[in-house]
Amino acid sequence: MDKYIYPNEDIYHEQLNGLEDRFSTVPLMEELKQKAREEGLWNLWMPKNHGGLSNEDYCALAEMMGRVLWAPEVFNCNAPDTGNMEVFMKYGTEAQKAQWLEPLLSGEIRSSYCMTEPDVASSDATNVRTSIIREGNEYVINGRKWFITNAPYERTKIFIVMGKSDADNPNRHLQQSQILVPKNTPGVTVVRPLTTLGYDDAPLGHAEVLFENVRVPAENILLGEGRGFEISQGRLGPGRIHHCMRLIGCAQRALEFACRRAVSRETFGRKLAEHQSVLEDIAKSYNEIEQSRLLTLKTARKMDEVGAKDSRDLIAASKITVPLMAQTVIDRCMQIHGAGGLTADYPMAEAFNYARWCRQADGPDQVHMMALGKQLVKRYAE
Amino acid sequence: MDKYIYPNEDIYHEQLNGLEDRFSTVPLMEELKQKAREEGLWNLWMPKNHGGLSNEDYCALAEMMGRVLWAPEVFNCNAPDTGNMEVFMKYGTEAQKAQWLEPLLSGEIRSSYCMTEPDVASSDATNVRTSIIREGNEYVINGRKWFITNAPYERTKIFIVMGKSDADNPNRHLQQSQILVPKNTPGVTVVRPLTTLGYDDAPLGHAEVLFENVRVPAENILLGEGRGFEISQGRLGPGRIHHCMRLIGCAQRALEFACRRAVSRETFGRKLAEHQSVLEDIAKSYNEIEQSRLLTLKTARKMDEVGAKDSRDLIAASKITVPLMAQTVIDRCMQIHGAGGLTADYPMAEAFNYARWCRQADGPDQVHMMALGKQLVKRYAE
Amino acid sequence: MDKYIYPNEDIYHEQLNGLEDRFSTVPLMEELKQKAREEGLWNLWMPKNHGGLSNEDYCALAEMMGRVLWAPEVFNCNAPDTGNMEVFMKYGTEAQKAQWLEPLLSGEIRSSYCMTEPDVASSDATNVRTSIIREGNEYVINGRKWFITNAPYERTKIFIVMGKSDADNPNRHLQQSQILVPKNTPGVTVVRPLTTLGYDDAPLGHAEVLFENVRVPAENILLGEGRGFEISQGRLGPGRIHHCMRLIGCAQRALEFACRRAVSRETFGRKLAEHQSVLEDIAKSYNEIEQSRLLTLKTARKMDEVGAKDSRDLIAASKITVPLMAQTVIDRCMQIHGAGGLTADYPMAEAFNYARWCRQADGPDQVHMMALGKQLVKRYAE
Amino acid sequence: MDKYIYPNEDIYHEQLNGLEDRFSTVPLMEELKQKAREEGLWNLWMPKNHGGLSNEDYCALAEMMGRVLWAPEVFNCNAPDTGNMEVFMKYGTEAQKAQWLEPLLSGEIRSSYCMTEPDVASSDATNVRTSIIREGNEYVINGRKWFITNAPYERTKIFIVMGKSDADNPNRHLQQSQILVPKNTPGVTVVRPLTTLGYDDAPLGHAEVLFENVRVPAENILLGEGRGFEISQGRLGPGRIHHCMRLIGCAQRALEFACRRAVSRETFGRKLAEHQSVLEDIAKSYNEIEQSRLLTLKTARKMDEVGAKDSRDLIAASKITVPLMAQTVIDRCMQIHGAGGLTADYPMAEAFNYARWCRQADGPDQVHMMALGKQLVKRYAE
Repeated sequence: MDKYIYPNEDIYHEQLNGLEDRFSTVPLMEELKQKAREEGLWNLWMPKNHGGLSNEDYCALAEMMGRVLWAPEVFNCNAPDTGNMEVFMKYGTEAQKAQWLEPLLSGEIRSSYCMTEPDVASSDATNVRTSIIREGNEYVINGRKWFITNAPYERTKIFIVMGKSDADNPNRHLQQSQILVPKNTPGVTVVRPLTTLGYDDAPLGHAEVLFENVRVPAENILLGEGRGFEISQGRLGPGRIHHCMRLIGCAQRALEFACRRAVSRETFGRKLAEHQSVLEDIAKSYNEIEQSRLLTLKTARKMDEVGAKDSRDLIAASKITVPLMAQTVIDRCMQIHGAGGLTADYPMAEAFNYARWCRQADGPDQVHMMALGKQLVKRYAE
Repeated sequence: MDKYIYPNEDIYHEQLNGLEDRFSTVPLMEELKQKAREEGLWNLWMPKNHGGLSNEDYCALAEMMGRVLWAPEVFNCNAPDTGNMEVFMKYGTEAQKAQWLEPLLSGEIRSSYCMTEPDVASSDATNVRTSIIREGNEYVINGRKWFITNAPYERTKIFIVMGKSDADNPNRHLQQSQILVPKNTPGVTVVRPLTTLGYDDAPLGHAEVLFENVRVPAENILLGEGRGFEISQGRLGPGRIHHCMRLIGCAQRALEFACRRAVSRETFGRKLAEHQSVLEDIAKSYNEIEQSRLLTLKTARKMDEVGAKDSRDLIAASKITVPLMAQTVIDRCMQIHGAGGLTADYPMAEAFNYARWCRQADGPDQVHMMALGKQLVKRYAE
Repeated sequence: MDKYIYPNEDIYHEQLNGLEDRFSTVPLMEELKQKAREEGLWNLWMPKNHGGLSNEDYCALAEMMGRVLWAPEVFNCNAPDTGNMEVFMKYGTEAQKAQWLEPLLSGEIRSSYCMTEPDVASSDATNVRTSIIREGNEYVINGRKWFITNAPYERTKIFIVMGKSDADNPNRHLQQSQILVPKNTPGVTVVRPLTTLGYDDAPLGHAEVLFENVRVPAENILLGEGRGFEISQGRLGPGRIHHCMRLIGCAQRALEFACRRAVSRETFGRKLAEHQSVLEDIAKSYNEIEQSRLLTLKTARKMDEVGAKDSRDLIAASKITVPLMAQTVIDRCMQIHGAGGLTADYPMAEAFNYARWCRQADGPDQVHMMALGKQLVKRYAE
Repeated sequence: MDKYIYPNEDIYHEQLNGLEDRFSTVPLMEELKQKAREEGLWNLWMPKNHGGLSNEDYCALAEMMGRVLWAPEVFNCNAPDTGNMEVFMKYGTEAQKAQWLEPLLSGEIRSSYCMTEPDVASSDATNVRTSIIREGNEYVINGRKWFITNAPYERTKIFIVMGKSDADNPNRHLQQSQILVPKNTPGVTVVRPLTTLGYDDAPLGHAEVLFENVRVPAENILLGEGRGFEISQGRLGPGRIHHCMRLIGCAQRALEFACRRAVSRETFGRKLAEHQSVLEDIAKSYNEIEQSRLLTLKTARKMDEVGAKDSRDLIAASKITVPLMAQTVIDRCMQIHGAGGLTADYPMAEAFNYARWCRQADGPDQVHMMALGKQLVKRYAE
């Protein structure tokens, strides 16, 4: 980070802003990926049972990478590719792995996970309306998705698409399938990139994607027809926690900026650091960050010990707590910077946007509070 | 609003996004300005002593216009032009008025108010460093400003610049002057547009502006050398309140969107409106909006009765309260909309940005809390 | 207030704490009531249509009286007697008025309103379980009530009891009746005084009351069998607003204490008033008080104009907003006072308790947010 | 707890409320202390270097005991006796230990720590005004203290008094001494018990104490003249953390009550547990408790590893965070209980008071935020 990332932050943004197509490759990124690969700082997210790190050990790394929004990709650790690679590792056939997992692991291509739909509350995965219908040796896919991260990016080649293959199955959790759809398949349209709070998150981006009579071979199905919900459950835990870890890095960095600002800026004849309210903001922010970090660490440790499924109380707790904490802390630290804190002169504003949309990603906070609340009522009252 | 503004929101953004230069004229705007002029809905901000409305009467109009971010300009009521026109009306010579006020009042040109500087806490107006030095029949201006609204806009022709003409004057409030600098004067550079939370607020924009040995005739001075602080004091009151009024419109509109969303969206087998927490968010938002509106109205009424100077307690109270209220309410309403609430598909995200930067505009909340706190301590404890 | 109330605060508490029975008469109270009667400052709550003040005009008085918790009784303006007197005025027979309203208006006796029950959510009035059954020329009452204000007080003579006279009526709003039960009727037991946050609110108090086969003459029914719900609806509006007005007085007084403390106390070499965070707390508190006051005033004005029923949006808004505001503001002001702020050396701690239980009185905040939320969804989305 | 504490909660309060003198012994307490001693559950707070537990190990026990406010005393683990015993262990002479530490360790007597003064901001220990002046073989003590926990209790026999023995010493940290004053020494007056939010915390209590020409032998000085500040620094760390641990127990218990209430109470045709807002309150409370617990545990672990002095960042963080968290969580849980939640029918209201005054005990939150803020600015900005 000290040697290659922080010193290149301005250059990265200059290159990005200089691109003719905002969703094409930033040259610096490819150089830095090469360096990271050479130094063995590559695919650090790899789970322990595949020779990688425990969730707990990965926490500190993810936080560190999270301090710069584009840094995780340098180490091939960015969402949603990490989650997608894990899906391939857990559920892919050898052929699927050879074709898609290998270039993903090497950082050659990127991938999207096509879950969220504009017309239904996708936080309840059973709601998806996209259809995946078998016709002979093919599946035909029709539907509209949005907030598909990576979709606009030129290097993205493969979509994992969630849809209904058996909408009438009385078991609501067996209606869904997940299927591989190469981005260049006829009938796939990346309709438009979406912004959140004005940010397009280029070059990876989030897009609305339309599937119109898209046909793929039957062997593109993942794990088997009707097992889409099962895959989505298996996928979510670590991904949520990775966002939390990165957001803690964002918040921590904002706090450090605020501390430096507090000693370098004077108002009304005193340094900011001599205003009691600034010290209180700094102290509160530290407390909130530290508590979030400990909660996320405990969640990671529990996942290491008992698996994601039995850790869903703490996963929910982290998912509810950390993005909102990061939004709040970064908001305070921007305020300490005056109007400049809101501009692109600091990384805080963009990190604020990251925190804000994470309160919606993988389901809004409210859904997780409902789920966690129910677990707790069960635990303590029954 | 119903006939000309809401139906044109999408078209406005399409035209804006289709501009080659984002800071050039949006054709729709000129058409609508023409319509507004024809219907006599023009310069509604005009103060009562110039034949216009009282502050109190203007409140309802400003709130209504505030519901769409670009609507105030349609009625020639956008900041900072309204404040600048008032400066011309109160402090300008006849020649200055003829040259600049007339085309401003007719909506032909736009103007900027150049106060904030990157290097000092400009919330304390006595801090400005830009120099305005008399040399013969000219003044020479040197300095760097930022967050200069309108500066990037192609129709902006005149800058009102605040600087120090007598930095050694023992009376800190007599050191400053304000002077008129046509945007096209040699030595004036609009360095770059600034973004806040990813928004450039095109086509008007906010910019960093550099003044290097800029020379203007001595008669460009406003009111007289050493009276810059006096002008800045006279200017601020109504402008702050106008922002508050508009932000109340933003928040109110977000609430109405949230209510419509609550009946049109189902999650977990219930309409959102049947979730108690959604109803609570709606109720709280209403309460906060209504209270802010009443506070702003009272402030306007007090300004009508005793003038801005003696209303500075309530002006501060509104300035502290309303932008934060709007940020909070809009944040909740976006959350009720799911991820879509953060996109440009709704006006909420951009309004959120407006609320957020207003917590810095005309001085950060903290400065106004300090000033108000001191007044209150004096009032109740002495 | 300046002449008779503030100077007597300590004496009042000394007398109260010196009582053998905490729910007997404080001599000072009777002296001050006499003075208030003599000066015509009596029954100020009387509604306009009975020759009294408008709700709006009463606001300022109620706020003033609210600054000292026991002051409203001095002016015969304390809850729940004001609401009960209004019930008698609106719904009582001439005989009922002669027997009970007269001595209530003269301050000779006190009354209780027996609504809330421990076993059901009494915020929904249709839930009450107490039975009021006609037997010949009598009604027989059985049930358990709690939080019955005034019940333990020795001067309290009459209870207005809500119960079900026709539990099987298919119209849930016609099942209830209200009936007059003299406190000394056989079968009535004041079981125990209740405390909230450690306060017994003596000498008036709040009690659990048991009704066991209590028999009263049939003419004790109010308005008529089956009209209990109607009475309860008619009673609630002004009462809720009176609490709000008084709580604004509590909060305002706490703010004034905080301001005085801020100039009289030094920590770390500076007066509290020179700590930016203290000034911020004071400024925020002022803003919140002022906004609450304006909301309550607007509610009062609307009630004056269109009646309580059509003002239920604003009544709910005030009920949700003001007690929580008062709790928050007083908490901050206590904190500025150090540990002493929590003691009986200041009126703040007891006022904090008043604010806290008002968040439950007449239904918890949540119930009013639900009701208001539904109204708003209807207003803006249908 | 399950066998002896919870089943006795009602009995404890009955006995306490039945005492003629509220500050005399509750018989049940002595029985339970006897049982605890027999089962070896005694003096669990004892530090590791005296054969006791690590701070980390003690956390879980303190949380458990904290679930019932009077339980810590059963195990001889109540404040301030634990801190006072530690003072004796670290700084006492053999004679002092024999006379006072032994009966304290056996639970025979209680002690007070006399630090806070009404007239100065005692959060800054250098402010104390009480004088401790050497006269021959005696010290003469004059001053006024308040919030002296245990002082009103009949079993309390010894006071540790902080005062100035050398007010003119240029080193502000060498001006203070601490000295042992038996409660029955002539000139010592327990002026009055103090309440916080209406609670007197009987039978231990907090009192105002007056020292008028109190004379004790010179050998009663602790550690040596001028070393009072040093002792106070050594004493504070663990005590603060013990309060935090206990408050986490209070909050956790309130949460469990809320969960049980959520399934047992119906409103508007649904169980509370089916209202989304109740589930959100429960989920949020869990998150806040769990985060506070992890922060406190980390603080304890750090104290075990590097000592209290070098853990002052985390001690401050815990002190700022936990009492406010407990106040907030308990407030929410009381609200879920309706008006009953505020009464003595549940332990929540009294625990709320405990949380509230802990925000003042050992210095108000604001002082610790200032101290922590300064450390952080130093850490990150220099």
